[in-house]
Amino acid sequence: MIQHSVKRPSHGGNLVWAASLADCSPSVILDFSASINPLGPPPSAIATIQARLGDLKAYPDPQYRELRSALSEFHQIPPAYILPGNGAAELLTWTCRDLAALDVTLLVTPAFSDYQRALKAFNAKVLEYPLEPLVSGQWELGQTLASHAHEDFLAHKTAGLLLNNPHNPTGTLFDTGVVSSLLTDERLVVVDEAFMDFLPAERQQSVIALVLEHPNLVVLRSLTKFYSLPGLRLGYAIAHPDRLQRWQEWRDPWSVNALAAAAGTVIVKDTMFQQQTWQWLAAAKPLLFQGLSALPGLQPSPGAANFLLVKSARSVVQLQTELLTRHRILIRDCLSFPELGDRYFRVAIRTEAENQRLLDGLSQILSNGEQG
Amino acid sequence: MIQHSVKRPSHGGNLVWAASLADCSPSVILDFSASINPLGPPPSAIATIQARLGDLKAYPDPQYRELRSALSEFHQIPPAYILPGNGAAELLTWTCRDLAALDVTLLVTPAFSDYQRALKAFNAKVLEYPLEPLVSGQWELGQTLASHAHEDFLAHKTAGLLLNNPHNPTGTLFDTGVVSSLLTDERLVVVDEAFMDFLPAERQQSVIALVLEHPNLVVLRSLTKFYSLPGLRLGYAIAHPDRLQRWQEWRDPWSVNALAAAAGTVIVKDTMFQQQTWQWLAAAKPLLFQGLSALPGLQPSPGAANFLLVKSARSVVQLQTELLTRHRILIRDCLSFPELGDRYFRVAIRTEAENQRLLDGLSQILSNGEQG
Repeated sequence: MIQHSVKRPSHGGNLVWAASLADCSPSVILDFSASINPLGPPPSAIATIQARLGDLKAYPDPQYRELRSALSEFHQIPPAYILPGNGAAELLTWTCRDLAALDVTLLVTPAFSDYQRALKAFNAKVLEYPLEPLVSGQWELGQTLASHAHEDFLAHKTAGLLLNNPHNPTGTLFDTGVVSSLLTDERLVVVDEAFMDFLPAERQQSVIALVLEHPNLVVLRSLTKFYSLPGLRLGYAIAHPDRLQRWQEWRDPWSVNALAAAAGTVIVKDTMFQQQTWQWLAAAKPLLFQGLSALPGLQPSPGAANFLLVKSARSVVQLQTELLTRHRILIRDCLSFPELGDRYFRVAIRTEAENQRLLDGLSQILSNGEQG
Repeated sequence: MIQHSVKRPSHGGNLVWAASLADCSPSVILDFSASINPLGPPPSAIATIQARLGDLKAYPDPQYRELRSALSEFHQIPPAYILPGNGAAELLTWTCRDLAALDVTLLVTPAFSDYQRALKAFNAKVLEYPLEPLVSGQWELGQTLASHAHEDFLAHKTAGLLLNNPHNPTGTLFDTGVVSSLLTDERLVVVDEAFMDFLPAERQQSVIALVLEHPNLVVLRSLTKFYSLPGLRLGYAIAHPDRLQRWQEWRDPWSVNALAAAAGTVIVKDTMFQQQTWQWLAAAKPLLFQGLSALPGLQPSPGAANFLLVKSARSVVQLQTELLTRHRILIRDCLSFPELGDRYFRVAIRTEAENQRLLDGLSQILSNGEQG
């Protein structure tokens, strides 16, 4: 049965659920649960959507030439290597169909719960590959991943690897070198770079450029987090044209709606919005990190993206409920990440004023808790 | 390789392709190739989209409660029996995954080319079940389908049937009784009712009401043809909740964009637009049918929907090219329907003035042809 009741969601950003708990309208909730850029959507996106409403009367171009051309210029990759999708999540579905055809998929965990959905959809055999938290709050990566994954790759005739970079929810950034070292095995390597654009160009560790030489590499990208358009649905895959052509024959011809295709063409050229976002994040993240670190029982992990994973000495479900009902603030519990459970939460980084509201709310609750 | 050149499309409505042939902007082409209501989009849809642009900042509700509630009221079917999709074409993909799990799928042909795409995507075994043209221009249906399909159903342990009603491209309307007679076998019966809403309520032959009693029945519906919103992408499936829940776990959680979900909620209640559409079609169709019948070498089939299939004594590819280059009018060739080939074309019914432009263009070309 499809759920009609207000079941706890396995993804962030479910304001309908949160509003029912807080007994208020979804629009008044301050949402830290979905990692969306608080500066957006860029005015260029909204202006484009308004100007292109007439496009709704016609089918989208099934080849999405205009959008692919813009993405091609943005990444300096030929258009044939780019497939737009109805959000990166749609492309994840077809990615996982490819992974499921292999003997085993190595999954770096804790993993975004939609990975499990898509892998399960095609009955993929999954071997979990856990990151481990260090005392510093950082998560172990790099050498361990490279060496173990190599062994597991070699143990199976065919194998794939699925990870995101920067990693969600820990915020860990893997070096390009770590990922590229895995490519030599000619196994299928899938890198979800949904949050990579939050890093300024010189700090990004994207493997997009490697796709031209490696038909066994798939990169997934989102345009809805950085540009604050999750309701519009828009992402893309970068991979070998033969693979993308196969996916295109699996799915329907008009997967991306006309407004998303038009907006996507414009936003990747909006360098002013991009600069503003990087400047905001460079200022807001250290302040929020320090503020969280200063609260009793909380330890944030240093993260490369626009969110922070926070370890909590107190039950997160309890904390989440109190924040919702008393302050109408929604944080992301980590119950959908079995490795993390009730002692971790994730927060998006928002504007400095909004981050302060979160810190104030947490402070009130945690101070009460200490007294009680 | 993904095609970048202007390859002949297998679907109607590909204005980018047509514009490249006609050497003009896509916007100046008069499109008879996609069967879209010329009266729309309804102002209620555009007003809703404009009012709800703020929704783009948040993820859509994965349960689409608001939209499903409106559809539930519209069809008098509980919400749990309704799954919205990114166009009916997305739901066709998952439908065909269910069909492919059976020994054989009986496909009524000529069939919408996307059926073949979706069936092939999951390696379905297909048994084609051709309609036959009568001298009158009508296509044989009913008894033949019911009796043969029964035999073929019985010959296989598990089997499914895929048809659309009204049938595309012939326009044939199957009686509810014909479809319901196939349900007794407890085989999977899929009815694509993408064009059913073009018939006034009293003439519709929908099997939606039967879904409550038949877990082996799936009905697919579109909201983008009647409401002229193919660029927005919106359709839905009506089937047993267990089946829909399985599909929902196969696909990503936010398949329908927020603007489509908002518009869909409003348009199904727009009874004024619905009345206007039925009135327009009742007047425009007989005129276009008579006009086509009067032209040398053309024989239209009587059709129940908003399009007409036309048999042509002359090569349709040639006719199509001349209409495009000389009159910037696009008709739908039938090369993607192997049973029809170069001697049939399909035209959408448009406004009376536009239909007259088509008749004039055809008349000029066909008269020249007679002289040449």
